[in-house]
Amino acid sequence: MLDHGGNLDVAVKRFGGSLDDWIDLSTGINRRPYPVGGLQSRSWSALPSRSDIESLHEAARQAYGTAAPVLATAGAQAAIQLLPRLAPRGQAKILAPTYNEYAAILNAAGWSVEEVAGPEALAGADLAIVVNPNNPDGRRHDPAKFLALLPTVGRLVVDESFADAVPGLSLASEAGRPGLIVLRSFGKFYGLAGLRLGFVLGNEADVAAFDGMLGPWPVSGAAIEIGRHALLDRNWASETIARLSREAMRLDNLAKDVGWRLIGGTPLFRLYDAGDARAAQARLAGARIWSRIFKDAPGWLRLGLPGSDEEWARLAAALSR
Amino acid sequence: MLDHGGNLDVAVKRFGGSLDDWIDLSTGINRRPYPVGGLQSRSWSALPSRSDIESLHEAARQAYGTAAPVLATAGAQAAIQLLPRLAPRGQAKILAPTYNEYAAILNAAGWSVEEVAGPEALAGADLAIVVNPNNPDGRRHDPAKFLALLPTVGRLVVDESFADAVPGLSLASEAGRPGLIVLRSFGKFYGLAGLRLGFVLGNEADVAAFDGMLGPWPVSGAAIEIGRHALLDRNWASETIARLSREAMRLDNLAKDVGWRLIGGTPLFRLYDAGDARAAQARLAGARIWSRIFKDAPGWLRLGLPGSDEEWARLAAALSR
Repeated sequence: MLDHGGNLDVAVKRFGGSLDDWIDLSTGINRRPYPVGGLQSRSWSALPSRSDIESLHEAARQAYGTAAPVLATAGAQAAIQLLPRLAPRGQAKILAPTYNEYAAILNAAGWSVEEVAGPEALAGADLAIVVNPNNPDGRRHDPAKFLALLPTVGRLVVDESFADAVPGLSLASEAGRPGLIVLRSFGKFYGLAGLRLGFVLGNEADVAAFDGMLGPWPVSGAAIEIGRHALLDRNWASETIARLSREAMRLDNLAKDVGWRLIGGTPLFRLYDAGDARAAQARLAGARIWSRIFKDAPGWLRLGLPGSDEEWARLAAALSR
Repeated sequence: MLDHGGNLDVAVKRFGGSLDDWIDLSTGINRRPYPVGGLQSRSWSALPSRSDIESLHEAARQAYGTAAPVLATAGAQAAIQLLPRLAPRGQAKILAPTYNEYAAILNAAGWSVEEVAGPEALAGADLAIVVNPNNPDGRRHDPAKFLALLPTVGRLVVDESFADAVPGLSLASEAGRPGLIVLRSFGKFYGLAGLRLGFVLGNEADVAAFDGMLGPWPVSGAAIEIGRHALLDRNWASETIARLSREAMRLDNLAKDVGWRLIGGTPLFRLYDAGDARAAQARLAGARIWSRIFKDAPGWLRLGLPGSDEEWARLAAALSR
């Protein structure tokens, strides 16, 4: 099992308390979720119909600004799991450092995996993988560079799990081009990671291949009903982008006051050089605030944004201690 | 796309009305679902933690009566999709006729697939597949026969999607034996198919293989919270078994009155020889009641049980017309 953010069990085991005592800032999941109202009873009881699923796909196309084929998956992770099966085993190149599941899954499936430092070095790969904006460092790449790269690789996977809050980076409108696969996460920006919803955008053949691997009914009725509603609510999205952008600066200011250097980030999370990240994590954990640190980068500490005044106050107090 | 029960779009397209006008008896999904209360906000917003998932697994072990490794999946279907990847391609034998996804998925993955008529003929298969009780004809097999078969096959998959209401048939207590894989569906008996929840029971290596293929967070927070609660509620289960068994007889009596012959069934669905099943389906569709018919068996009509007095009355009226 790889190390991920969001597994509060580890925090509880090491530092005590119960799950509900903790403020989990170890992920980039928005802590002010899209409001979930009551669901139609059909969403719980019935198998999702084709028309329900199709209406979710249509909402995703509108939200992401694409006319390409779209497929709902049980989180972006469910699509990532299938990447090694999309083509015969070959050479994968990953723009690194990034989300650690890519290398692990491709290695486990027998692919040859190379981590590269810049987009140009992706050329020649059978499968090239980029996360834009990147996790955990927030690095942003000009999407035009990726389009230029497209003819030089077998397939290019652009993971846009954190692109909702920086929509200018998205290649969703270019989806449909041969070889281009765009992955979107629903749960992070909408703050509903427990719903398990994400999307694959691609050309007809690739989306059909994912569809065949996942089979009928890959997402829940709740994901369909809530997802459709949320994706069509563009007001909520633009207000949330504005709020997250403001609050990311607020977090940076708190961090600066304790001497942490901003490495990068997106409006959903920030990565700091905290000097001794382990000690910083332990200090925050004393106030039951969970953060993410990284084995290979002893200074790095990643923080999501608090979701309420009370959470901001607890974080500020913990940092100033 | 294969033909399945539960796709009301087809009914609406052919016979009119809106989805909510119809009583869907085309599946074996219990129409009196386990009551869904309010959920913890964490179930919507957070990534499911390992301890949450483990507590669901423990509830499943208790409900199914096994000490074996268990893995939650997004419906039994999600596990079925992965069967071709559990072992190198070889010879699959399926006890037929049965759920049509097995042959389709194995064929698509390049397996050699043979449909056989009796359990004895499964011997020698690399992958043997049985559904017990069977769908759509309700055929019940003595599980001891399957245990005897186990040493003669590579792996034996026992799909117990409809076994909740006939628990004596289950091999769950034997799960853990090398080569034995038991699949359970949560959504059918608990009437919550939209939740997408099912389980794989098997030995450690096989369950770990499914786990690796599915990756972290394969089921939703709602599925974990509701599933755990429902699986531990043994009173609801025993009352539901008793009710379904009574009402299955009630359905048989209605069918008998219109001259349909019972072929078989489980307490969740009944299969009748309706003579001209297409005409019978159209007659029911006139009252916005959807049923399942079968291309290769022109007399067969499968019906689930109505869920309320109003639904029973509508069915009785439609049949007596």
